[in-house]
Amino acid sequence: MLTHCWQETIRLCPVIGRGGDAGYKVRGRMSDAPSYSPPVKIGEVMCGATVSRVVSSLHPDFAEGDWVLAYSGWQDYDIASGDDVINLGKDPQHPSWSLGILGMPGFAAYMGLLDIGQPKAGETLVVAAATGPVGATVGQIGKIKGCRVVGVAGGKEKCRHAVEVLGFDLCLDHHAEDFAEQLAIACPQGIDIYFENVGGKVFDAVLPLLNTQARIPLCGLVSGYNATELPDGPDRIPLLMATLLKKRIRLQGFIISQDYGHRINEFQQEMGKWVKQEMIHYREQLTEGLEQAPQTFIGMLEGRNFGKVVVQVGPSR
Amino acid sequence: MLTHCWQETIRLCPVIGRGGDAGYKVRGRMSDAPSYSPPVKIGEVMCGATVSRVVSSLHPDFAEGDWVLAYSGWQDYDIASGDDVINLGKDPQHPSWSLGILGMPGFAAYMGLLDIGQPKAGETLVVAAATGPVGATVGQIGKIKGCRVVGVAGGKEKCRHAVEVLGFDLCLDHHAEDFAEQLAIACPQGIDIYFENVGGKVFDAVLPLLNTQARIPLCGLVSGYNATELPDGPDRIPLLMATLLKKRIRLQGFIISQDYGHRINEFQQEMGKWVKQEMIHYREQLTEGLEQAPQTFIGMLEGRNFGKVVVQVGPSR
Repeated sequence: MLTHCWQETIRLCPVIGRGGDAGYKVRGRMSDAPSYSPPVKIGEVMCGATVSRVVSSLHPDFAEGDWVLAYSGWQDYDIASGDDVINLGKDPQHPSWSLGILGMPGFAAYMGLLDIGQPKAGETLVVAAATGPVGATVGQIGKIKGCRVVGVAGGKEKCRHAVEVLGFDLCLDHHAEDFAEQLAIACPQGIDIYFENVGGKVFDAVLPLLNTQARIPLCGLVSGYNATELPDGPDRIPLLMATLLKKRIRLQGFIISQDYGHRINEFQQEMGKWVKQEMIHYREQLTEGLEQAPQTFIGMLEGRNFGKVVVQVGPSR
Repeated sequence: MLTHCWQETIRLCPVIGRGGDAGYKVRGRMSDAPSYSPPVKIGEVMCGATVSRVVSSLHPDFAEGDWVLAYSGWQDYDIASGDDVINLGKDPQHPSWSLGILGMPGFAAYMGLLDIGQPKAGETLVVAAATGPVGATVGQIGKIKGCRVVGVAGGKEKCRHAVEVLGFDLCLDHHAEDFAEQLAIACPQGIDIYFENVGGKVFDAVLPLLNTQARIPLCGLVSGYNATELPDGPDRIPLLMATLLKKRIRLQGFIISQDYGHRINEFQQEMGKWVKQEMIHYREQLTEGLEQAPQTFIGMLEGRNFGKVVVQVGPSR
């Protein structure tokens, strides 16, 4: 596998679409800020996925004329060992599509929407960067799944494309001054899924419209990639979001009775066992008398309690 | 089921522990700000879960002397229809524990940690409000699952309790001026799970220490409940967190290649089918010539592209 092959690079070099892994990776590697990929050094070839044709090969799995998907970067030719190079065959229908709809952007759209977004028929799905390779795919999968799809894009032409060609129900121009109001009107039932690709003011407009149990696959934050650093100002939402994205973190609000009511038997069995076996200790802070309830409550909010606060009103036996 | 029974209320009235559903509900219902529960009206009985004893009953499922778990609020007696009243029997071992370890706080700890937190042996779990009914349970379940558990509590006495009685590996006092530094030192391997119960400065100290693929079950934000309103200031993290909690939202960062690499075959089959059947449209913006790559890339970051940006370097066939 270490035999070297020549490959003609870059027939087609993606300069990445909005959002998606690649966008973050490529822009992120242009700075030496901590990220999940090391920075590109000065003098090195700029990184990027490529679709290329093999010029000559000593590798048994690749022959002259084969189309390949690789990560050869911004250059005309490359030499590859064959590792991490995917053979697309002699005659793929659209070679460059392996950089988009059939590659990482399409895959991100598919998994992010279906696995994290969990779309259900009749739900409202909002998609930023609606005509980018990720957003366009997200919206169209959303339509296949029966969602009402509201796109957000920059400019009338893109918005028209999203509706007329991609089949979105609606697409709003985020350049409009009253964009947030337009979005609220466009989503009278609120937003069930927001596929986050851009961050910034689109997220701000989405936030108050999110429905209970909404899902936000956080795939990219392209609006912030060009900032020279994360804002060190008082608003730390950009910092939080960048952290969640880079570190692939799940942050999930839950309300026990509403989210897990159906699993209470499992809990009671397991916890009953642990408590009985003294694997779990439990501490109460008993206050006597209903008239103590308000002060006790205030004390609890201020952290002056120690253990579960319980007010004893009558005799306990 | 609508026959009324008398019940003696409130043997034990919980005035809620830190965090958990009840805390948010009770404090939240003291204001008329929009929330998932309606506000308590002036003159109405303040809401709260209760453990009570039945004084007399016309209901077939409840007899005099039965202990019951109900939601009767801050008062001495209540009349209940029997709906939403759980019979604990004649002689439960610790009647009031149904308000804590064996009730909603214990259940929130159990589900939040196990289902959202997904603890694995050897991971670092940080638990705020470490001696509260939720936090104490979270930390102890964490130990059962083999985690290194770092508690956070207010005051030395609580911290000592967390370590000596509950068996946490460590517990830090959030009143310390150098709390954030202490936390960093206490978590040399970073934080894999942060069970969020308090918000505010504990979250601020946790954020930079979170590991890749960390999980944050967001169960409560008690540090903010007493604020008269959500800060309208420039920092909107409190607003975001309150929204995620109230609406039980899942916000999840992901990086497609790293999170879903193992499911690429499924994607390629499904997407290949959709593209072939023209259920999904795809648009590329081709730029010719490698020398156009930088300008094209900049244009994409600024939103001047339309569709997946691809730079064509050589002939495409």
